[in-house]
Amino acid sequence: MSDVKKVVLAYSGGLDTSVIVQWLKDTYDCEVVTFTADLGQGEEVEPARAKAEALGVNEIYIEDLRETFVRDYVFPMFRANTVYEGEYLLGTSIARPLIARRLIEIANETGADAIAHGATGKGNDQVRFELGAYALKPGVKVIAPWREWDLNSREKLMAYCEERNIPVDFSTNKKKSPYSMDANLLHISYEGGNLEDPWEEAEEDMWRWSVSPEAAPDQPTYIELTYERGDITAIDGQPMKAHEVLSHLNKVGGENGIGRLDIVENRYVGMKSRGCYETPGGTIMLRAHRAIESITLDREAAHLKDELMPKYAKVIYNGYWWSPEREMLQVAIDNTQDVVNGVVRLKLYKGNVTVVGRKSDDSLFDASIATFEDDAGAYDQKDAEGFIKLNALRLRIAATKGRGE
Amino acid sequence: MSDVKKVVLAYSGGLDTSVIVQWLKDTYDCEVVTFTADLGQGEEVEPARAKAEALGVNEIYIEDLRETFVRDYVFPMFRANTVYEGEYLLGTSIARPLIARRLIEIANETGADAIAHGATGKGNDQVRFELGAYALKPGVKVIAPWREWDLNSREKLMAYCEERNIPVDFSTNKKKSPYSMDANLLHISYEGGNLEDPWEEAEEDMWRWSVSPEAAPDQPTYIELTYERGDITAIDGQPMKAHEVLSHLNKVGGENGIGRLDIVENRYVGMKSRGCYETPGGTIMLRAHRAIESITLDREAAHLKDELMPKYAKVIYNGYWWSPEREMLQVAIDNTQDVVNGVVRLKLYKGNVTVVGRKSDDSLFDASIATFEDDAGAYDQKDAEGFIKLNALRLRIAATKGRGE
Amino acid sequence: MSDVKKVVLAYSGGLDTSVIVQWLKDTYDCEVVTFTADLGQGEEVEPARAKAEALGVNEIYIEDLRETFVRDYVFPMFRANTVYEGEYLLGTSIARPLIARRLIEIANETGADAIAHGATGKGNDQVRFELGAYALKPGVKVIAPWREWDLNSREKLMAYCEERNIPVDFSTNKKKSPYSMDANLLHISYEGGNLEDPWEEAEEDMWRWSVSPEAAPDQPTYIELTYERGDITAIDGQPMKAHEVLSHLNKVGGENGIGRLDIVENRYVGMKSRGCYETPGGTIMLRAHRAIESITLDREAAHLKDELMPKYAKVIYNGYWWSPEREMLQVAIDNTQDVVNGVVRLKLYKGNVTVVGRKSDDSLFDASIATFEDDAGAYDQKDAEGFIKLNALRLRIAATKGRGE
Amino acid sequence: MSDVKKVVLAYSGGLDTSVIVQWLKDTYDCEVVTFTADLGQGEEVEPARAKAEALGVNEIYIEDLRETFVRDYVFPMFRANTVYEGEYLLGTSIARPLIARRLIEIANETGADAIAHGATGKGNDQVRFELGAYALKPGVKVIAPWREWDLNSREKLMAYCEERNIPVDFSTNKKKSPYSMDANLLHISYEGGNLEDPWEEAEEDMWRWSVSPEAAPDQPTYIELTYERGDITAIDGQPMKAHEVLSHLNKVGGENGIGRLDIVENRYVGMKSRGCYETPGGTIMLRAHRAIESITLDREAAHLKDELMPKYAKVIYNGYWWSPEREMLQVAIDNTQDVVNGVVRLKLYKGNVTVVGRKSDDSLFDASIATFEDDAGAYDQKDAEGFIKLNALRLRIAATKGRGE
Repeated sequence: MSDVKKVVLAYSGGLDTSVIVQWLKDTYDCEVVTFTADLGQGEEVEPARAKAEALGVNEIYIEDLRETFVRDYVFPMFRANTVYEGEYLLGTSIARPLIARRLIEIANETGADAIAHGATGKGNDQVRFELGAYALKPGVKVIAPWREWDLNSREKLMAYCEERNIPVDFSTNKKKSPYSMDANLLHISYEGGNLEDPWEEAEEDMWRWSVSPEAAPDQPTYIELTYERGDITAIDGQPMKAHEVLSHLNKVGGENGIGRLDIVENRYVGMKSRGCYETPGGTIMLRAHRAIESITLDREAAHLKDELMPKYAKVIYNGYWWSPEREMLQVAIDNTQDVVNGVVRLKLYKGNVTVVGRKSDDSLFDASIATFEDDAGAYDQKDAEGFIKLNALRLRIAATKGRGE
Repeated sequence: MSDVKKVVLAYSGGLDTSVIVQWLKDTYDCEVVTFTADLGQGEEVEPARAKAEALGVNEIYIEDLRETFVRDYVFPMFRANTVYEGEYLLGTSIARPLIARRLIEIANETGADAIAHGATGKGNDQVRFELGAYALKPGVKVIAPWREWDLNSREKLMAYCEERNIPVDFSTNKKKSPYSMDANLLHISYEGGNLEDPWEEAEEDMWRWSVSPEAAPDQPTYIELTYERGDITAIDGQPMKAHEVLSHLNKVGGENGIGRLDIVENRYVGMKSRGCYETPGGTIMLRAHRAIESITLDREAAHLKDELMPKYAKVIYNGYWWSPEREMLQVAIDNTQDVVNGVVRLKLYKGNVTVVGRKSDDSLFDASIATFEDDAGAYDQKDAEGFIKLNALRLRIAATKGRGE
Repeated sequence: MSDVKKVVLAYSGGLDTSVIVQWLKDTYDCEVVTFTADLGQGEEVEPARAKAEALGVNEIYIEDLRETFVRDYVFPMFRANTVYEGEYLLGTSIARPLIARRLIEIANETGADAIAHGATGKGNDQVRFELGAYALKPGVKVIAPWREWDLNSREKLMAYCEERNIPVDFSTNKKKSPYSMDANLLHISYEGGNLEDPWEEAEEDMWRWSVSPEAAPDQPTYIELTYERGDITAIDGQPMKAHEVLSHLNKVGGENGIGRLDIVENRYVGMKSRGCYETPGGTIMLRAHRAIESITLDREAAHLKDELMPKYAKVIYNGYWWSPEREMLQVAIDNTQDVVNGVVRLKLYKGNVTVVGRKSDDSLFDASIATFEDDAGAYDQKDAEGFIKLNALRLRIAATKGRGE
Repeated sequence: MSDVKKVVLAYSGGLDTSVIVQWLKDTYDCEVVTFTADLGQGEEVEPARAKAEALGVNEIYIEDLRETFVRDYVFPMFRANTVYEGEYLLGTSIARPLIARRLIEIANETGADAIAHGATGKGNDQVRFELGAYALKPGVKVIAPWREWDLNSREKLMAYCEERNIPVDFSTNKKKSPYSMDANLLHISYEGGNLEDPWEEAEEDMWRWSVSPEAAPDQPTYIELTYERGDITAIDGQPMKAHEVLSHLNKVGGENGIGRLDIVENRYVGMKSRGCYETPGGTIMLRAHRAIESITLDREAAHLKDELMPKYAKVIYNGYWWSPEREMLQVAIDNTQDVVNGVVRLKLYKGNVTVVGRKSDDSLFDASIATFEDDAGAYDQKDAEGFIKLNALRLRIAATKGRGE
């Protein structure tokens, strides 16, 4: 084993990462620093302290990163109307760069020379953690126990716990589930179990954050979202911080059966995988952001954003948040958002998010031009003829030469 | 006036285009050929014959183009998962190239030297008709009465009718509506009226094709769509022609409150406009096509499609169906669809289209690799380390040189 | 005629724009303000003053804009390695937005309500002037005499001069030429004459700025260009202002037979046109900028720049410098240039620009990794296996299912 | 070691791959099949037979693939005007997929279960060989000795030769060179040696295929290239097969000092590397193809090609020739080439390739429209006003709302 002195571990407090604490000590004979973050996953993080202490950890970091997470990662991503493969709102992907960053910062603070995480060797998360880590601290050693150890079955893991005296009830802090799950303020995800057959419908009791559309109220809920520079700053006139906005939208969205998604996606490591996601707030935000942009953004800027978006989504999905290409795309996107101000009115009803109104002091919608009524000369219809004629010129020349169908 | 001998008019049988018949004769002293197409707009087209005859038209074309429309225009477009500005399914845009083509073909058959249409000088449709016409017959004369005449108010139009003895009840074939509407098998659209204020919610009684989600049944409807080479060929195992598919999906979609859309869009002629759309079948098809692609399409082909899509959508929206760039994009898209075969299972419920299953003999989803369980060596997790290390190399070198944050 | 009180004219001092001065007065009964700019076209601009005075102009603007032109327009464009249609360095296109801006600023200063220019109705320049003008002063009236008047032949123009007493020797300030030419510090262009047959070779005596490669010195010239943030700030160690850099490179490039180009290009207004260009300095700068980027820019940032470049070039060519989409692209491009520092060494010889060396404190070239010799562990070749395996995974799964050739 | 029975080796006949023959037998106790291809590298391939026999190889494949190489790989690539990172003509990259394909085909013919190659673990070629192999035969075992063995120094290699009785004069079939070289009909490349310092100029005696511009003839050479569907089919009226075309252009190009390139490029495996290339024929073809396209291709098709090109180049550079995304791009590119017919006239002189004429029956250049002279009504200049007005509309509305600078 390479010469590791101290390692910062992304520690959830669950059984797996608790085993990793012990395994790191056994395998590398090194100190372990644990880092546990509240990203809004809906579980207490403070209990991780006692567990880490019980495992003999001396340096324990437990942090509430919810505001940072939403303000500096989720919101910038939503400015681009980001969707991966037409469907996925990148709930897991967007949390990884922040964790990678804190792991590295804590490594720098504590003098650690390595980081470790509990992601498997088949998924995207290992890539996201590690690309982030290498980009921020190029010489760091990364330890990915799931790629190294032989504790690949539940039985071996349990045997190891017994052998090393790790309290197995660590596993009970998560409700028993057949699914592999990940949660933060933006979403909760489910993989594995019966989802491994893409023809099989997800079971109703899998979903945790939202009621089904069927179970949602029979009356719609109306909300108004206030945008400033592309970000939501108030709901129904009530100013809120970034994470409060998302928290509120998750609540109202979940109550109205909004944000369930069931897809097969293409992982960066090369295989397809089935995933189910609940993203109530994010689903609302995507719709609403497009609506406020629809009246405030220039057409060509909007179209350029749309053309760049799939690449931007891929950059984030693949784990390149901390990269020059993400930065390039971000400045281009952010450059358009100064004028994205105003209010969007939405109707939420049994799974539906419907835009019913949008207004803005920065609106480019000009009723006097768009009108079907007399426009008092705001637009000269005769201009259209020249516009069409010159746009058609290349086609006409080609047709004259016998092209065209 | 230029020397026009015979003009083929896109004739709906409504008041406006009836006035145009007379105005063309008066203004150009030319013969008028009328062309009326059934594109699934939901109105009888045959009555247009008597009206045209009453207006003294000798050459009258009335055609059922529903199958052609869906098979050769709508379906190819849906292969690309085409959406304009993130929302609009291009229901009006996609009908125009077919009409343009038939206008030109009829002009060739009848020896006409001009075509005419009833689109205004502010909209996209004039552009779409005329670009198509010029691309297919470069020397054709195009007459756009709304850009030429002075009958710009209802009063003037009525006065003209009286003067020329045009039966005003021609106007009654469309239910009185404050909206400017367009319909075909893919959608019905609404503009104008109170929609000209984007903050004002569309009125419930505006919508014609779908019930509201609130009014939809309390029980979900499940359907299975069979895909062959990217197109739907059967519903619930029942083989159908293209237009039957769309017709069926419109019915079941509309009954379940699916496919309403309310947006502000950017027109090619430069202004923003508010439009409401009902696209029940199209909304279902978009979701379903992505689902069948999700298990059958290669990742990079799928991503390239996603990157090309906004451009393809823009090409169609702007009226360049009959262009080399559309053809280029189409062959690229179609090239990917040979493997897009299989079945998608959907749940329709009060406005929601939920994918609940997808299966295919061409599936690239490999449960033995994707599984969270033991994969029997199908995937070597250790490969991930090298994958990450080399993908990170450029970032690490840069960080070593002091870049990164 | 609409009610124009005062018009600012882009005035070259030549015959055509002198006629325009008179024609504007005659036609619009308005005051005329002339604006003449030194953009490095190689002619004195001061003589335009006497001519304008002779035509009765009271408000005469004559300005040296060379530094602004190169620093704020040419250099930003070269940061993107901008080339239109694979060949054209946009020498004419990039000067238009600056002229448009000054026309509008002078209109604002002098209280003019209109601007005018001498570009014809067939070219790109009318578009560039007018899009710029409208973007900067939306209510401005634009007068394009060549689109309005009937002085479309040399004879009519001469007759008008005689009638209005315009000294015809105004025409002699340009050496008689069969070509339509445009020049500024970036290039000189030729159109028309025998160039209208794309099979005919340009005549040697057409070219004005460069010697032919045959006539260039038999000894190469070596130069070193110093870059700071993507722009050249010194040549052979000698600090220079932006326009001095370009001026110097034009001289040394022209002497070495560099920068001639003969192409057929696609105009925005729809037709193809043949153009010949001399761009000695620009040709050197393009090569050199790519060279300095090759060692300092991250791969993915460089590739993203390359993917955006054709769009950026088109935006500039078509006249959308003053647009949100250009701004978006510019901030993305500029964001990458902070690290584009260093020195490029070039060999200039009979038309060839050869990069022979590049160095930078910001270099990402790492000889210890790239070396074919022993790299002392800087790179683990075994990582490549995992890298390839996972990149191949999707292809292998597809091949297993019988795809592949 | 895994259970390999028979391996097909890409065998050059040189020392390194001869050592690999022995090492494969020693290490895997397997049969070795050698495959040696003439791709126009300029060396006899037949001598490889005796060498392979001397090494005890029973199944020896020696093939002349020059025509296939140019017709099915080089020419399709040039249809896209493909350039990697603005400079590199992909001479090495484009040969790899053909070799990979033949390796796999031979494996299938001979019942081999593995392939092997002599590329190192730092370069792109390993990736290209292996991605191709996996895409065409997903279960194949790939052996890359340079990533596995410990013969990493010249000394160890020589010791191994002595020990295994491998004639060291095998090494003399390549002229002693400090550079790592690769050659085929498209180019010859140089890496390593003093090139590892990017500031150091390449030495004159490194170059093998071309004279220096200085040493080239003082008289220009004119040639005419005939294009059919985007490919060159005749030179100076003389019909030729694909590889004869390239061979001829290499000769005449090399004699005129054309095609030298010295760059720093970004490898797929993550580092930057310096490379020098001689691509005489390719340099001519790139220029000429753009010229014939300039008069025959529609503007928007040409621009779309330009936008797709960087991605297409990257796909090839990175080794994804045998992939769905390459196929998608290829059909789009090829779709445009039916009309790319005609003749290009070029002047070759001391390193310069100058287009001096182009003509085509499929030309879209229309002198009657483009002319500066009277066009007899072919183009109505007044159309330009409407064209500009509507294109400016969005900018004017924005400016009215206080945007713009």
